[in-house]
Amino acid sequence: MTAAPHVRLETALSDFAAALEAGLAARLNATPRPGEIARPARLLAAMRHAVLAGGKRLRPFLLTEVARLLNPGLTVDALMPASAAIECLHCYSLVHDDLPAMDDDALRRGRPTVHVAFDEATAILVGDGLLTLAFDLLADPACHADPAVRAALVLDLARAGGLGGMVGGQMLDLAAEGRFGDGARPDEAEIRKLQAMKTGALIRAATVMGARLGGGSDDVLHRFGRFGDVLGLAFQLADDLLDVTATESEMGKAVAKDAAHGKGTLVARLGIDAVRAELDRLVAEATELLSPWGARSATLAAAARFVAERRR
Amino acid sequence: MTAAPHVRLETALSDFAAALEAGLAARLNATPRPGEIARPARLLAAMRHAVLAGGKRLRPFLLTEVARLLNPGLTVDALMPASAAIECLHCYSLVHDDLPAMDDDALRRGRPTVHVAFDEATAILVGDGLLTLAFDLLADPACHADPAVRAALVLDLARAGGLGGMVGGQMLDLAAEGRFGDGARPDEAEIRKLQAMKTGALIRAATVMGARLGGGSDDVLHRFGRFGDVLGLAFQLADDLLDVTATESEMGKAVAKDAAHGKGTLVARLGIDAVRAELDRLVAEATELLSPWGARSATLAAAARFVAERRR
Repeated sequence: MTAAPHVRLETALSDFAAALEAGLAARLNATPRPGEIARPARLLAAMRHAVLAGGKRLRPFLLTEVARLLNPGLTVDALMPASAAIECLHCYSLVHDDLPAMDDDALRRGRPTVHVAFDEATAILVGDGLLTLAFDLLADPACHADPAVRAALVLDLARAGGLGGMVGGQMLDLAAEGRFGDGARPDEAEIRKLQAMKTGALIRAATVMGARLGGGSDDVLHRFGRFGDVLGLAFQLADDLLDVTATESEMGKAVAKDAAHGKGTLVARLGIDAVRAELDRLVAEATELLSPWGARSATLAAAARFVAERRR
Repeated sequence: MTAAPHVRLETALSDFAAALEAGLAARLNATPRPGEIARPARLLAAMRHAVLAGGKRLRPFLLTEVARLLNPGLTVDALMPASAAIECLHCYSLVHDDLPAMDDDALRRGRPTVHVAFDEATAILVGDGLLTLAFDLLADPACHADPAVRAALVLDLARAGGLGGMVGGQMLDLAAEGRFGDGARPDEAEIRKLQAMKTGALIRAATVMGARLGGGSDDVLHRFGRFGDVLGLAFQLADDLLDVTATESEMGKAVAKDAAHGKGTLVARLGIDAVRAELDRLVAEATELLSPWGARSATLAAAARFVAERRR
């Protein structure tokens, strides 16, 4: 692999991130929308702090790239409501996970977390507001002309986010730290399950929702479900590696926290070399899943490599 | 007014509450649903604690009664997904509002609040899980055959719940306590606005969603929007009266908290007699809004009186 595709992908990601930030900022302006009574200024400011913080925007990027692979006529703007929705869901989960009662993190993307920059009550409401906004965005006719697609997108996101997905995964993660007085440490199968729920479910939702928005058949939706699963697993394995190898300054947040919290990670269980080998295998599988689209899928293949090899 | 309609309404409410509890319990069993990976047992138990706690179930009752007024062929069971969704949204807001960082309440409906019975992290996740489940229920084909209705229901609920509704209303309520270092006390217009957001928006959503599920025209939806607004205002005024006049044992939660927190209420500003007079006027308006349906709307008219005159 040469350096060039990485460079092009980084450019595509940062161009997309700028467009997404503009879309999110427009949605979080001061003007009440139909059905809203008023928008409290402090809450709006805190929601903007939470979502306009310069993340990689990987999930909405994947959604957008999958949709445009299947239907090249779709624009980034046309896909903005769904992109914004999936990023709101991601950011809500970060804000709540950072709370003192949860992971108690003071730093996120190199900036104070919402409960530090504002206060704990505001941070709880920011998360609730972003979670709710995600479904507002998906159900709105601006998201897609066909209400059947909108309802299906809501269901995709709700199932990824709920007690059998992200919320349940965070619960299992807290349990894995021994938070609830249960001394048992999770085995490899349990670690994989909790990571699939906490991290994998939303990445899968992004690729499935992209395929849905692109008008994909059931077979294509199934293929992009698997593509999302593979990326989610690679994402988590790369995260575990970074927790061991990266510095706090590179990550913009605290590192080596998993080990400090006594969490089992697959790196601790399998070793760095075995995890790197599994990452290579996952990138190969992701690329193979894209083979029906040939060279047109180069950006998504590069995204899979980026996920596996990222440094932050 | 004789006692009899009240007695019949209490029976109808308690029959409905039993059916709703069964529906909620069935939805919160241990079996993962399609798209879910696993359901952590402690989180499920805490979600059940939050929703199976014997509330009045007023919001889903209103949704069901409005839908059945417009389409008598609809059964309580057929309306169960939407009923469960609106109750999940209500219960999520209670769980998060009770948190130490918010209103710090230890007692709810005579039982320990979720963060007391379990722990704070679990309570945050219970709220997140119930909020997410609400949208899952509405977007599922089991809720309504027509995806356009499902998408519209999601939008109704998201707008009632979001930063221009419940989440924003709770933020304004905290600000009204002087929580954010702002010494200003809200005036009557500001109190009415925050109550419309915090309490009124979800009651309005219940009646509008009921009208939508009953197949009502735009005019009928508009009428039930106003009906919900009137009930929401009556609900909050009755709540303010109870905060002054009821005992903790009658309410099953702490009372006189608003005064203790320095919150302005309309009872404090207008006096008990003026508030009772406004409640009478609101019941009359609610009854008048139901007049096109004559005697068939007796249960909803009784519900309006119940809301205004309730003792708990």
